[in-house]
Amino acid sequence: MFSFKVLKSEGKARLGELTTPHGKIKTPAFMPVGTQGTVKAMLHKDLLDIGTQIILGNTYHLYLRPGIEVIREAGGLHSFIGWHKPILTDSGGFQVFSLSRGRGDGKSKVVVKEEGVEFRDHLAGDLHFFTPEKVIEIQEAFGSDIIMPLDECVEYPTTYTYAKIALERTLRWLQRSIRAKKREDQALFGIVQGASFEELRRESAMRTVEMDLFGYAIGGLSVGEPKEVMYSMTQIVCDLLPWEKPRYLMGVGMPEDIIEAIARGVDMFDCVAPTRMARTGTLFTSYGKINIRNEKYKRDFSPPDPECDCYTCKNFTKAYLRHLFNVEEISAYILNTIHNLRFYHRLMENIQRAIEEGKFGEFRSSWYNVYDFQG
Amino acid sequence: MFSFKVLKSEGKARLGELTTPHGKIKTPAFMPVGTQGTVKAMLHKDLLDIGTQIILGNTYHLYLRPGIEVIREAGGLHSFIGWHKPILTDSGGFQVFSLSRGRGDGKSKVVVKEEGVEFRDHLAGDLHFFTPEKVIEIQEAFGSDIIMPLDECVEYPTTYTYAKIALERTLRWLQRSIRAKKREDQALFGIVQGASFEELRRESAMRTVEMDLFGYAIGGLSVGEPKEVMYSMTQIVCDLLPWEKPRYLMGVGMPEDIIEAIARGVDMFDCVAPTRMARTGTLFTSYGKINIRNEKYKRDFSPPDPECDCYTCKNFTKAYLRHLFNVEEISAYILNTIHNLRFYHRLMENIQRAIEEGKFGEFRSSWYNVYDFQG
Repeated sequence: MFSFKVLKSEGKARLGELTTPHGKIKTPAFMPVGTQGTVKAMLHKDLLDIGTQIILGNTYHLYLRPGIEVIREAGGLHSFIGWHKPILTDSGGFQVFSLSRGRGDGKSKVVVKEEGVEFRDHLAGDLHFFTPEKVIEIQEAFGSDIIMPLDECVEYPTTYTYAKIALERTLRWLQRSIRAKKREDQALFGIVQGASFEELRRESAMRTVEMDLFGYAIGGLSVGEPKEVMYSMTQIVCDLLPWEKPRYLMGVGMPEDIIEAIARGVDMFDCVAPTRMARTGTLFTSYGKINIRNEKYKRDFSPPDPECDCYTCKNFTKAYLRHLFNVEEISAYILNTIHNLRFYHRLMENIQRAIEEGKFGEFRSSWYNVYDFQG
Repeated sequence: MFSFKVLKSEGKARLGELTTPHGKIKTPAFMPVGTQGTVKAMLHKDLLDIGTQIILGNTYHLYLRPGIEVIREAGGLHSFIGWHKPILTDSGGFQVFSLSRGRGDGKSKVVVKEEGVEFRDHLAGDLHFFTPEKVIEIQEAFGSDIIMPLDECVEYPTTYTYAKIALERTLRWLQRSIRAKKREDQALFGIVQGASFEELRRESAMRTVEMDLFGYAIGGLSVGEPKEVMYSMTQIVCDLLPWEKPRYLMGVGMPEDIIEAIARGVDMFDCVAPTRMARTGTLFTSYGKINIRNEKYKRDFSPPDPECDCYTCKNFTKAYLRHLFNVEEISAYILNTIHNLRFYHRLMENIQRAIEEGKFGEFRSSWYNVYDFQG
């Protein structure tokens, strides 16, 4: 039901194909984030139009609303949300640590125990307890194609000592997750932690690989560390992961981060950047990011990105998008999101083609010549 | 460039075809409201999918933002917003009177003079002056297919004396509008006023018809008067309008109002109800309105309306739509709006077919048997 093949490679960059019960995914792949059972400001049909192959759902949010019973009764998450292509769900761990910590009353509401993690949700503040077994059970009710084990996410910066404790606990929780898993139509990934410590990243990678999972995720990056650290940790981990298994860099990132991670051997990505930034007026273009609110676009009757083939760029001008955004029309968020996600998917398609043709190195350097990634 | 033909009729109900420079419109027609150059929560492509033939733009809003210069430079409203089918723009009069009155500081900011109307906008509170000539000039910059003359909208209830004054002024302003109009690729409608006074409605209708316009609108209804009053005023006016010209009932209405107005001879409608109510969770169905927030839909895995052919009903359940609405996802507003507008368009298509087949009377009575319009 599940398989992964590296079809072609150039250096460490790989062109692959991931097979799931809900279809095949060509990698490198970008997964739009559909936190609450919908990618924000997008309809599923528009996702299909722009080439989305798989979406990500957030276990934490879906567990709170609408709750597992509704999703179970609907026949699983695919059926509940009406999305019939692959779905990956995270473990909820990241949200437990980030959203609950951020409750703003100064006191952490997260208590990590060996058994699991106790937290208060960011809505009503109710008390919940996630264990590795519970998180697997929730995702089995969802029926997502790819599922993630509960892990302990540490803040950046952290100490070596605490990163080591979290790493050990994450490994023990992974062992329990593997034992708890019952459904055979779902693939479990292991998550490599270790913060920004090379030694811990190596240890986490090797010991996670020993547990022989379908795929491996790199967690705990893009949490505030410098980009060089993110890139070097990614490289250290990828070099220790088995060649024939898919690699997923969680929560990353900007286009340049994705290109750099692919150069280091990563196959899968998710990030809220294209959708969230669309809703604040930032559009990705072939030449770098622009903000559509800018006064200079008031009478600019050209498309956001002349090289883009999306509905937004083919039909609308910067002047119109600026107007829609300024008057707070919902269609501004929709059109911006369509464009940004298509930008990400087109980037992945161009990279896939480049690897196929043995021109990824060329693509990477010419991309930096054209795209202003510091703007 | 413009023509209108009554293709078939049954009693006073008419099946017609309105030809404009941007295409033909089959009537009776419902025009979704695109206040600020977009129908709220809709993409143009989704409007085309559900059968939208013409949209309405609000002169008041577009004049304020982005302003006529930007629209003129873009080559007109069609080009600015990327909508290439017919557009009707109103005169801005209704918004001047309703939005400026509603500034909340207790003092009316609207001063009606013979020359025109002075008002402060609802945004920055800047002072503006609309004259009949100015309103024609703005709409000529827009290049909308059908344009409306400045009229004086009175509140409900009002006195006979004031209604008469407003009626006379509206007629003088119409005369000035006709003289000011230069473009031949736009059709000007006359607006019949007269509040809830039969005698004034008759006088307004007859004297407006004398000015020989391309079409006639009925204004000043659906402003709080009882439905029977709306229906009887509509009937009185329609009976005095020339058979071979299109009739447009402004700002109306609920499905039952539209059916009753068609039975009295109206051809065109616009109303914010389907779009606005979509954004508060109210969906129109073959059996009446429902509110998707209702707890009873939590585990209801059936579509909002099993008889509907829209994207929402064909792909999603009430349980999913309820969830999306509860968690305030933008896609809730999009999916609800697609459904409500398709409901309105499907109603018009069914009525067109009924008139074509000489079964409108039958349609009307069977509709009331099934649809709970008081719910």
